[in-house]
Amino acid sequence: MEPSLRWIAEKNVIEMIDQTKLPGTLTYLEISDYRSAANSIKNMNIRGAPAIGVTAALGMALAAIEFQHLEVGKFKVEMENAARIISKSRPTAVNLTWAVKRIQNLIENNSTSSPDLTKLIIAEGQKMWQEDIDTNRAMGKHGATLLIDGDTVLTHCNAGSLATVQYGTALAPIRWAIEEEGKKIQVIADETRPRLQGARLTAWELHQDKIPIKVEADNNAGLMMRKGKIDKVIVGADRIVNGVVFNKIGTFMVAMAAKYHNVPMYVVAPKSTLSLNETEKDVIIEQRNAQYEVAEIMGKIKEPIVPEGVECINYAFDATPFELITKIITQDGVFSPEELIQRYK
Amino acid sequence: MEPSLRWIAEKNVIEMIDQTKLPGTLTYLEISDYRSAANSIKNMNIRGAPAIGVTAALGMALAAIEFQHLEVGKFKVEMENAARIISKSRPTAVNLTWAVKRIQNLIENNSTSSPDLTKLIIAEGQKMWQEDIDTNRAMGKHGATLLIDGDTVLTHCNAGSLATVQYGTALAPIRWAIEEEGKKIQVIADETRPRLQGARLTAWELHQDKIPIKVEADNNAGLMMRKGKIDKVIVGADRIVNGVVFNKIGTFMVAMAAKYHNVPMYVVAPKSTLSLNETEKDVIIEQRNAQYEVAEIMGKIKEPIVPEGVECINYAFDATPFELITKIITQDGVFSPEELIQRYK
Repeated sequence: MEPSLRWIAEKNVIEMIDQTKLPGTLTYLEISDYRSAANSIKNMNIRGAPAIGVTAALGMALAAIEFQHLEVGKFKVEMENAARIISKSRPTAVNLTWAVKRIQNLIENNSTSSPDLTKLIIAEGQKMWQEDIDTNRAMGKHGATLLIDGDTVLTHCNAGSLATVQYGTALAPIRWAIEEEGKKIQVIADETRPRLQGARLTAWELHQDKIPIKVEADNNAGLMMRKGKIDKVIVGADRIVNGVVFNKIGTFMVAMAAKYHNVPMYVVAPKSTLSLNETEKDVIIEQRNAQYEVAEIMGKIKEPIVPEGVECINYAFDATPFELITKIITQDGVFSPEELIQRYK
Repeated sequence: MEPSLRWIAEKNVIEMIDQTKLPGTLTYLEISDYRSAANSIKNMNIRGAPAIGVTAALGMALAAIEFQHLEVGKFKVEMENAARIISKSRPTAVNLTWAVKRIQNLIENNSTSSPDLTKLIIAEGQKMWQEDIDTNRAMGKHGATLLIDGDTVLTHCNAGSLATVQYGTALAPIRWAIEEEGKKIQVIADETRPRLQGARLTAWELHQDKIPIKVEADNNAGLMMRKGKIDKVIVGADRIVNGVVFNKIGTFMVAMAAKYHNVPMYVVAPKSTLSLNETEKDVIIEQRNAQYEVAEIMGKIKEPIVPEGVECINYAFDATPFELITKIITQDGVFSPEELIQRYK
């Protein structure tokens, strides 16, 4: 899989795959200003915690380029403003805050001119881009130790190459096991209502890479486990706090089913996803546009599936308690939730 | 709610709401021959175990009318053939077999002419129609004892008036509690992928009856329970065997989530749904047209949500073990699964 986004230095733009158009057509967006970068996150042209983080950092680079002609005091004010706008584009994604903060720290710790700061920011954004790929490959290598030849792995949502710069989080161990170790692995993707990232994105990117992939409605997962057809579950994470993993709505239901069937439940998440000084209560789960996502299936259908006048409920994420999670894989290794707390808190 | 189907004696036809057109438009089908009756079940113009049973019986009445001019030996051969065709239209629904069998027994036990048999069959079909309504109201009354004022009830799929002749199975206790006892009850309907019966049908019929109803994607249910927003789960059943309840795909996942949260899980099912001499192994769960239902969302969308070349898995039903079920309500009362076995086996 090609990268989901990249910095084109000659043009000072971010180029990204427009994921709202997948799986029908592969089209690219060229983002040349930070407000558009924030909008691309908000509109989910790009999504997935790590990809959002890098987009946010490169969005800060676009802001720097826009304001580099200002004297450094005014430059910093504008950068603060850009940081606020970018950070608001997706409240639950801790990587976004983390990425913006990293650029802000850079500005704080370097007393130099606006053009020089701009150069540093662009370089930092590019470094974060490369780091993301390296991190994912490291998680892939660690996670692949949990997979054996012949495994069928269930995944929910898309925590793949498209959710990162490249290679993926949840899909990284699968890619590593297949590509680096020659194991035979099959994948089943939950379609992942309401936004269907599993059907549209996970299926698309694995099919591109010729990795065996089938799609099921989310409701199908329990029966598949009962039939013994799922060996492992691997998902990503939007935020890991002390006690629960926040991830795409439905992850929690898969985790309860996995527990009931003694199917291992693995979460693959880079350290930037960890927020271990928080607990479940600290995080407000956003509700998204229910009419559009649930009733209109994101504008894909001719008439709403829900009768006029009936309201929908549409939380974007849910919280899976640690007791349902077998292992969490970061770029440093494989940890039980308790070990994760010990290591990182 | 008006009946989902009825026998129009003046025309010798079955009139039914075409449920494939809901919630957009309320249209009716007029069924004047048994093959069309079988097709209406197969194409899911009508669905829901009890409604299918009555449709099958009235379909047998249509066959009798067609063949009543034949001498009784030939009449019986044609009726056997009709029974086979009708029975094949939906393999998992035990009510269908039960209803057809009941008409066949009638034929077997009455040695009279074809026209007289035909009259008996029509009368039996009409009796079964009325019995279904009476049964549902009885289940409603028993089930309502489990609901308290202020409850929010989650239901999956549609086991409502539209799934029966009238009044519903899973929705019967809700209707009884509200209409006969004045309790305040709110309902949340899982949309129920792949066929979206919850969004399309449960929401439609409850909204028609002004019962408070909201819709959620199936993935939302776990978080709702974690937030304490679901007091009870009530579902119907396609078939109850010794050890498990077969119902719409996804019921099992809801049941696991309910168990995890100590939310009571109730199944409402008329006795005709019981098949207690069978076990889980005796039932083959049908896979339905995955491309149409999953990838194309039943033809409702402009382009498939799954990339070309990727296969979908699409079981229609799942099996929920008795240990996850709190109570089963029949027309005779409220039973634990163990009591159900003792009472009916």
